[in-house]
Order: sequence, then structure tokens, then C-alpha cells
Amino acid sequence: MIAIPIITGLGAIFLAVFFAFSILKREIVSKKMEEVAGYIKSGANAYLTRQIKVILSVTPILFLFLYFFLGWREAVTAVLGVITSLTAAFVGMSICVRANLQTADVAGQSSLKSFRTAVLGGAIMGFCITGFSLTVLAILYIIFQSPQPIIGFGFGASLAALFAQIGGGIFTKSADVGADLVGKVEENIPEDDPRNAAVIADLVGDNVGDCAGRGADLFQTLSDDIITGSIVASTLIPKYGMKVMFFPLILLAAGVTASAIGILSTNNGENGLKPVKIFDKGLIISTIFSVIFSFFATKIILGDLNIWVASLLGLAATLVAAITTRYYAGMEGKPVEKIAEASKRGAALNMITALGYGLQSPIASIIMIVSAIIFAFNLSGGMLFAVVAVNIGTDLLIAFIMASDAFGPIVDNAAGIAEMSKAPKNVIKSLSSLDSVGNTMKATTKAYAMSSGTVTAFVIFATFFTMTKVREFDVTKPQNLGFLFLGICLPYLISSLVIKSTASGAEKMVDEVRRQFRTIKGLLEGKAIPDYARCVDIATKNALKEMILPGMISIVVPILVGFAFGATALGCLLIGAVSSAALLGPFFNNLGTSLDNAKKLIEDNEGQKGSFAHSSAVIGDTIGDPLKDVAGPSLLIFMKLIGMSALLIAPLLK
Amino acid sequence: MIAIPIITGLGAIFLAVFFAFSILKREIVSKKMEEVAGYIKSGANAYLTRQIKVILSVTPILFLFLYFFLGWREAVTAVLGVITSLTAAFVGMSICVRANLQTADVAGQSSLKSFRTAVLGGAIMGFCITGFSLTVLAILYIIFQSPQPIIGFGFGASLAALFAQIGGGIFTKSADVGADLVGKVEENIPEDDPRNAAVIADLVGDNVGDCAGRGADLFQTLSDDIITGSIVASTLIPKYGMKVMFFPLILLAAGVTASAIGILSTNNGENGLKPVKIFDKGLIISTIFSVIFSFFATKIILGDLNIWVASLLGLAATLVAAITTRYYAGMEGKPVEKIAEASKRGAALNMITALGYGLQSPIASIIMIVSAIIFAFNLSGGMLFAVVAVNIGTDLLIAFIMASDAFGPIVDNAAGIAEMSKAPKNVIKSLSSLDSVGNTMKATTKAYAMSSGTVTAFVIFATFFTMTKVREFDVTKPQNLGFLFLGICLPYLISSLVIKSTASGAEKMVDEVRRQFRTIKGLLEGKAIPDYARCVDIATKNALKEMILPGMISIVVPILVGFAFGATALGCLLIGAVSSAALLGPFFNNLGTSLDNAKKLIEDNEGQKGSFAHSSAVIGDTIGDPLKDVAGPSLLIFMKLIGMSALLIAPLLK
Repeated sequence: MIAIPIITGLGAIFLAVFFAFSILKREIVSKKMEEVAGYIKSGANAYLTRQIKVILSVTPILFLFLYFFLGWREAVTAVLGVITSLTAAFVGMSICVRANLQTADVAGQSSLKSFRTAVLGGAIMGFCITGFSLTVLAILYIIFQSPQPIIGFGFGASLAALFAQIGGGIFTKSADVGADLVGKVEENIPEDDPRNAAVIADLVGDNVGDCAGRGADLFQTLSDDIITGSIVASTLIPKYGMKVMFFPLILLAAGVTASAIGILSTNNGENGLKPVKIFDKGLIISTIFSVIFSFFATKIILGDLNIWVASLLGLAATLVAAITTRYYAGMEGKPVEKIAEASKRGAALNMITALGYGLQSPIASIIMIVSAIIFAFNLSGGMLFAVVAVNIGTDLLIAFIMASDAFGPIVDNAAGIAEMSKAPKNVIKSLSSLDSVGNTMKATTKAYAMSSGTVTAFVIFATFFTMTKVREFDVTKPQNLGFLFLGICLPYLISSLVIKSTASGAEKMVDEVRRQFRTIKGLLEGKAIPDYARCVDIATKNALKEMILPGMISIVVPILVGFAFGATALGCLLIGAVSSAALLGPFFNNLGTSLDNAKKLIEDNEGQKGSFAHSSAVIGDTIGDPLKDVAGPSLLIFMKLIGMSALLIAPLLK
Repeated sequence: MIAIPIITGLGAIFLAVFFAFSILKREIVSKKMEEVAGYIKSGANAYLTRQIKVILSVTPILFLFLYFFLGWREAVTAVLGVITSLTAAFVGMSICVRANLQTADVAGQSSLKSFRTAVLGGAIMGFCITGFSLTVLAILYIIFQSPQPIIGFGFGASLAALFAQIGGGIFTKSADVGADLVGKVEENIPEDDPRNAAVIADLVGDNVGDCAGRGADLFQTLSDDIITGSIVASTLIPKYGMKVMFFPLILLAAGVTASAIGILSTNNGENGLKPVKIFDKGLIISTIFSVIFSFFATKIILGDLNIWVASLLGLAATLVAAITTRYYAGMEGKPVEKIAEASKRGAALNMITALGYGLQSPIASIIMIVSAIIFAFNLSGGMLFAVVAVNIGTDLLIAFIMASDAFGPIVDNAAGIAEMSKAPKNVIKSLSSLDSVGNTMKATTKAYAMSSGTVTAFVIFATFFTMTKVREFDVTKPQNLGFLFLGICLPYLISSLVIKSTASGAEKMVDEVRRQFRTIKGLLEGKAIPDYARCVDIATKNALKEMILPGMISIVVPILVGFAFGATALGCLLIGAVSSAALLGPFFNNLGTSLDNAKKLIEDNEGQKGSFAHSSAVIGDTIGDPLKDVAGPSLLIFMKLIGMSALLIAPLLK
């Protein structure tokens, strides 16, 4: 039975390798594009290598700590989690920095070919992440025969992902904000203009932030959900038999297979269909097959269809999250239209209107998640395992979602490469239209990841309280509520730190770009080349320095509270931290995306570029950047990391 | 013993009346100022009368509901709470709209006289609010001999305050944002310029939002704290005797007396001392006398000095809140300096930097509060009454804080009146410098009110769970955590609604001011007078329409959840809602104030008005307006209202 996830996982990896070869074997036509892409690739590799070194340099301390307190199993799996997560991120980024060039280069031939190349690039990410996770976890189960030691793996994966996301996010948004502030606002030159010194750093950032960061994020999401699911499942062996322990893995194998069908369908997308429609069709196909495959998986392994219904509720919750995000942040929804309209009255009303919508945007999704969990729990007669099924249900489409997400940075980079290598107007235009599709997909992925993270939180709470035997807490004791309040503070603290880091990085970037415009003769006239490497270096140093503190707080605080004040205090801190992040995170994500899309909506109207409304919307968009690409995504990972830290030390707490 | 609060209360009211006469007996010199102030007074009266009518029109429904479900006592006290709160707000505003004119008029004679007049105006507010609360509550105790029926009074006071704050806040910020967007940003004319049609509405707004709104807010804060304190105290009658029930009232009478000494000291402030220093001196004097008086009150009534220490911890928590707010949002702190510095690189970095600091600004204060509560609780050997003492401790300085807060809108209005009636430059300048003092005081008050609200929340949680006998909740049941998550959503929903309402009001205002500049000939040249009344009318209609929904949600949701899902669900909702508001509220308040002060800091540098940095900072300031003056203050009251609603229906829940 454990063979199913291994076969599915290896199959996914095989597909990824096959697609990678089919993309890379093509000869590049444009030498100019190859040169630009070369800058990006070397910048991205240089950053990621240094980032990995920093993360690996703390790994021995982690190993020793876990070894002394928990034993060699947890220590080894944690290090393995760190390494696998970093590998997933590195592989993902390596594909992105190659697929972007191919996408840009092939755009000269046909826009459909270019779309397909980007889709294939995304698909490689989707298959890599899920294939790695399923295979490695299944093998760990075979080795340890129990989910307990594997918690270390999830902890390690989440830890590495948090550093990767914070570091990558600060890098990309320092560069992006810095490039925009001088380029678009002061010098009035277009985005991705080769005269802007920060533009290569910005494109590098898309790879290290969006591609590597998101890859590590979804890898940890999937792994954590499988691990926590198995812990709960193992309590049900008396009822369902040994096979129940593999149920999360097998259900996800079914989901990955269904997603694979959906992904392959997008690659054969007919000419003439809009890219968003092709993705929607792929999503529907993945959903239908997920429903069917999960039915058989549940029927055969457990024979309990209530569990199947529970997993469908999870699936439905992710779809509701995607739909509400489309409404609040998508180009077609009323909010973005209203924000664009408000921009005519200035940057302040643009932002105030966006805040008004952004603050309410997470609520529908939270209500759906809470209802799904309560309904599934009651339907199963009060089994926690039903909540696990809801949680795994939220992950069924993960391979598809990862694929459509990675499409985003690939086309974003491709558009940048085309712009910088002064490709023909029609090539640039066809790539930019793909870029805005990528934006919508990115927002959807974050919504999905947040809803999955929120359901996971419920599983982690229950697992933690079951493990520590603190089933209840006394609400009349102020200490308990006190730690809950402190937990609520944590996401504010982490957001604050990463936003400040981005701002300080962006300030340095603004100064550097301004300096280059001032001191390099002929730069603004296009007669000289800026010093791109210096901007990459500034962004790198800033990001690596600034990622340490928020990353450390995320693990040190829960561990300290657990050891110093006991399991109840840690449980209360956990509830506060996760519930606070579950609102603050999607608020940041949706706010930022809606501001971005309001700007795009204005740009879509001919002649609006450079108008008062447009420059107001550009300010809003820039404010939204660190919120949607640094703070929001970091909180997503934080939610899981703090939970895994708590589970990891749970056996040591009274 | 009950005579002490009644005598103190009546004494406070007597002082208020005495000061009112001493201000009002003075003849106004400037007819022009009298005319401008007349516009403001009639606009404010018209708005407040309509607002009171709207609130009173729902009172019979409230009465019938409470009468049928809880009995006549709760119904009568609730209506009394609504009426007293509205009276407090109305009285406060009536004083403000008279004191502002006197302050502006006397500024021609001497800036010290003008300062003293504004201080006296504020003192009247401080004495009114505390005098009303002490006297009415003491009489209710004599009538009912039990705190239970008086919960209705607190509920009614909070309900009326919420409507007053939301309505007044939307009114003032629609007008303010609208006036600024066209005046400062588009037409480049100064603030409070008589050519701007929205400027009278803006000045009216300061009275109905800041003066009436804050008055109602502090009235409900004080009343709720006394009532919840007495409920807990009544469980201790076996230990301390009957007198313990009056302890909260008497301790507060001590605080009000101490504050009165502090307030009187500011009125005699030496010439030459900076206004902020005079207030600081007054605060120190109030604090010292509070420490002394509360020592004797505790010693004589309870003989338990641990309770005295607990109340000092509460006092210390408010001081810490005030100090951290000064740091994060004051003109002297590093954050405001950094925000001003970032403005040189554009509006986006101004806002991003402010967000970075704003998000972390509430944390120190929360840590202090939580530590104070836990320490006091453990010191007293686990008595909930120690938390009550911390809570009352946070209110000891309330009369002083109310007085220094009301100083703000009075000098703000006075500066506006001087500007509009084209008073001499030196008069305008001396009044504007007082205005920036007012801003700091306002931010301090909000910080104080938020810390007091957070401590109250702990008392309410404990009281609620004691009343409903749900001492613990099972964390492995997803329903409990689900309602906690829904509770976390509520402050987001309410903020979202009030911000959207402000934005839509501001949009209408922008359109109207633009229209008047376009259609009224000679307006921009100062040869014609704009139609002020139309702008007041637009703001009024918008505010009254928009205050209904967020106000209703705040009471209907907890009551529905309580009846439909029981006491545990309501308790979890309560914890979520209050803890979420405890962070989101001060985040909004500090963010908005820091943006405002960053703009002021830039303006303080000669020649910076109109620079790129300044116009960037003006955008940030405008974004911050609805956050600090609508959303943040509304959440403050919401925190207490939702708690009082829960306590009110607690006896009906299983």
C-alpha cells in the first residue's frame, strides 16, 4: 500500500525531468535575450547559494539541540527536512531561470508556444514539489514505522521555507520597490527598462522570492499536512487497521494524479482560448478527477464515505478561497474597479478604498473553512480524523496550483527579458498579457495556501493538545489568556520586521539607482549600461542580514514559552498566533494584489499611463508590494512553522 | 461609604459648571470669529441632534427586547445608559463649540490666556464625564443594591458610544479627507482656508467626532469598569464584607480627586513653560496623588495592600502605553523621524515605513498589560479581584486624560476659526503650535483607553465564564476554535465597513468641493463664499446612514451566537474578537498618528511646505486619517460593547 505514494511520487519526478528536457533541448535564437537571462541566472544563483549557506550554517546547532533534547531520529529528520526543502527551492528556481528565457525567446514565433513553454515550466515545479514530498515521506514511513520522528522533517522543511521566503521576499521587494520608485515615479521610464540599475535585481528577485520561496512554501505545506494527518491517523489503527496511517499519503497521491491530468490538459490548450480560461478548465478537470479518485481511495482503504465527504469539504474550501480572492483582488471584481475609480481622486483615496475592501476580504473564506471543519467533525460523529480529511482535501489540487503559480514568475521574467533586450513590440505585448494572468494565479495560490494553512492549524491544535494531554484550558486564569494575547502579537511583530527590512533595502536601492543616474554619463539617454551587479549585491546583503531576526523569533519564542511556562501556555500562544496570522496574512495578500490590479486596470485603458489616476495607483501598488510578497507569504509559513515547533517539543512538555 | 463617590461626583460636576461659567461670561471681541464659530456651532448641533434622534429611535426596540428577555431592571438601566451617554456627549460638545471660540478670541491678547481657556474647556469635559459616571452609578447601587441589573447601564452606555463614535468618526474624516484632497493636494491652498467648501464640515467634525465621540467613549469605559469590577467584588463579600462592593467606585473617586489636583495645576501653568511640559507636570502630580489616595482607600476599606499594588500596576500599564505611543507616534521619537526621512523617497516609502513601525507599536504595551495582570493575580494568591484592581488602576487618571484629550479638538477648532476669520499671523501661529500639542494628547488618550480596554477584557472574560459556569473550554473541539476564529474576524469586518464608509463620504465631498470651485465664480480668488452648509449636509447624511450596519453587527452577532450556539461559543467569539481588536485598534491609531506627525515634522522645517517630501507625507497623513480617527476608536468601544452584550445575556445562556 505504501507503494502507491512512492510510485506516484517517482512518476511525478519522472514527468518533471521529461518536461525539463523537452524545454531545454531547444536552441535559443536571440543572443541578446540569452545575455540578459544570463545576468538574471547568475544573480539568482549567487543569491540562492549564499542564502543556502546561511541557512545550512545554523543547521548543526539545530541538529545538536534536537539530538540532545529529542534524540537522533528527530535530529536527522529535521536536517533532512531542511535539505529537501532547500533542494526543492533550488530545483524550482533553476527551472524558472531557464524556462523564462525559453518563454521569451519562443514568443517571437507564436504566443501560444510561449504560453505552453511557461505552463511546462510551471508544471515541472508542480511535479517536483509533490513528487519529492510523497517519495521522501513514504520512505521515511518505511524506515521509522511511526509518524512521531517524522515531525522533525516537517519542522525542518517549514524552517527552511520560512528563511527562504523571508529572505527571498525582502530581496525581491527591495529591488522592485527601489526600481519602481526611481524608474516609474521619478524618471518616468517604463518598468523593466534596461537603463534602470535595479531592474536585473528585480528580475532576480522574482526567481528567488516567488519561485524558490513559493516552492519551499508548498513543499512544507504538503509535508506538514501529511505528517500531522498521520499522527492523528495512527490513533485510529484500532478502528481502521494499520492502513489508515498511510491514508493521507494515498489520498494525496490520488490528488497529485488528478492534478497531473489537469496540468497536461492545459498544455494542450486550444489556440484562441484565453489563458485564464485554459487554467480554469485545467482546474475543473483536476477537481473532477480529484473527486473521483479520492472516492475510490477512501472507499477502498477506509470504507467510510463520511471521510470522503470531509475531504471534499476541504477541496470546496480552497475553491471558495480562490473565488473570493478573485472577487476581491481580481481584475474583474467590483473592489478593483472601485479602487481604480478612487485613484482619480488621488493616492490617498486609492489606498483607503483598498484598505476598506482588503480588511474584509479574508472573512468569507474563514467562515467557509470553519463551517467545513465543524460540519465534517459532526458528520463523522466527532472524529478528529474528519478534520484531517478536510485538511488533506485542501491539498488535493496542490500540484496544479503550484504549476499555475510558477507560471507567474516565469512569464514575469520573460516579459522583463523581452523588454530589456528590446524585443519587437508585439512580443513584449503578448508576454505582458501573460504576465497579468500570472498575477491572478499568484493571488489564487496564496489564498489556497492560506486556507490550507488555517485548516492545518486546527489539526495541529488538536494534535498538540492530544499529545500533551491538555485538552482544556481554564479561561478564568489570566495567564492562559495572556499567552493567547501574546500569540496574537507575533504575526504583527514578524510583519513589522520584514516590512521594515524591505523598506530599508528599498531605500538603499533608491539611493543607488539615483546615484547611478547621476554619475554614469549617458545612462538616461541609453548610451551607457548601468552597474546591475551592484544592485544585486545590495539586495543580497540586505536580505541575508534581515532574514535572521524574524526567522529566529518564529522558532525561539514558541520553544522558550513551552519550556518556561509549560504546554498550556504554549498551546494558548499557538492559538493566538495562528488565528491572528490567518486574518492578517490574507489581508496583506489581497490588499497588495488588489492595488496591483487596480493599477493594471487603469493601464489597460489606452492613454491612461502617466495620468493622475495612474500615478496615484502606482503609489498604491508600491505600498502593496511588501505586503503581498513579503509579509503575507511569510505569515503563511509562520503559521505552520510555529505549529510544527510546538508538536516537535510536545513530548518534552508536561 | 457610598456617599464618597456621590460627593466626589457632585463635586466634579460643580467644578465643571463653575469653569463653564468662568469661560462663558467673557465677551467675544472679534465679530468675524463669532460668525465663523456660529457656522460650526449650528452645524455641530444640527448633526448631533439628528444623530441622537437616530440612536433614540432604536432605543424602544432595545427596551422591549431587554424587558421580555431579562426583565424591567435591565431594560430601564440600559435606556438610562443610552441617555446618560448621549447627554455626556452632548454636554461635552456644547462646551467644545463654545470654548473653541473663546480660545481663538483670547489668543489676540496672550497666548497663555488662550492656552488656559482651552485647558479649562478640556477640564470641564474631564469633570463632567467622571462626575456623571460616579454619581449616576452610585445612585443606581443605592436603588438596586446589586451590580447585576446595572450591567444594562454599561451596555447602553457602550452602545450609544459606539454609534456616536462611528457616526462622528465617519462624519469628521469624510469632511477632513475630502477637504484635504481638493484643498491641499489639488488647489494647493492651506488647511482651513475659507475658500474650501468642506472646511466648516471638517471643523464641525472635530466637535462631533473627537469631542462628543471621545466623551461618550470615556464615559462608557469608566462605567463598564466600575460595573464589571463590582460584579467580581460582590463574590468577595464573605471575605471583605459589604463594603468591597463599593471599592471600585471609591477607588475611582480617589483617582478623580487626584486628577482634579493635576488638572488645576495645569491651569496655573507658569508662563514660558512649553504646553507639553505643563501637561506632563499635571500628569505627574495626578499620578503622585493617585498613588497616595489609592493607598489610603485600599488600606481603609480592604486592609489588603496587595490590591493596592495591583491597582498601581494598572496605573503603570497606562503610563507605559502612553510612553510607547509617544515613542512610536510622537514628534520626538525615532519612528516619526524615519517616516519623515522616507517621505523624501516618495509617498510609497513613507507609508511602507509607517506600516513597519505601526505594526509593532502595540506590542510593548500588550506585554506590559499581560505581565501586570499575571503578576497581580499571582501576588494576590489567584484572586480575580486583583485583576479588577489592575483594571480600576488603569482608570485612576481618567479625568486628567479626558481633560488633556478634549484640549485637542478645542485648539484645533480655535486654529481653524482664526485661520478662517483671517486673524493676524501671530495669532494663527500661536494657535497652530497648541494644535500640535493637542495631537500628541489625543494619541496618548487612545493608547490609555486601549490599554484600559484590554485589561477590562480580562475582567469581562473571567466574569462571563464565572457567570455561565463555563470555566474551561475543550480545545480539541473544532467548534470552540472555530468561534474564536470568527471572533478574530469581527474587528476586521467593522474596520472595513467604517473605512469604506469614510472613503465613500470623502469621495462625495471631493466631488462637491470640486463642483463648487468649478461653478461658483470668484471662489478661488476669494471673492465669493462657498456653500458650507451643503458639505455639512452631505457629511451628515453619509455618516448617519453608514453608522447603522457596523453598529448593529457589534451587538447582533454576539447575541445571536450566544442564543444559537451557547455560552462556550459566545465565550470563544468574545476572546477572539477582543484579542484581535486589542492589536488592530492601536495599530490603526499609532499608524495614523505617526503619519500625521511625520507630515508635521516636515512642515516644521522652514520652506519644506510644498516640497516633494511634504506632498508625499500629506498622502500618508490622509491615508492615516480614517484609521486613527474612525477605525481605531471604533474598535476601542467595540471591545467593551461586545463584552457587555455577553455579560448582559449571560444569565440566559446554559
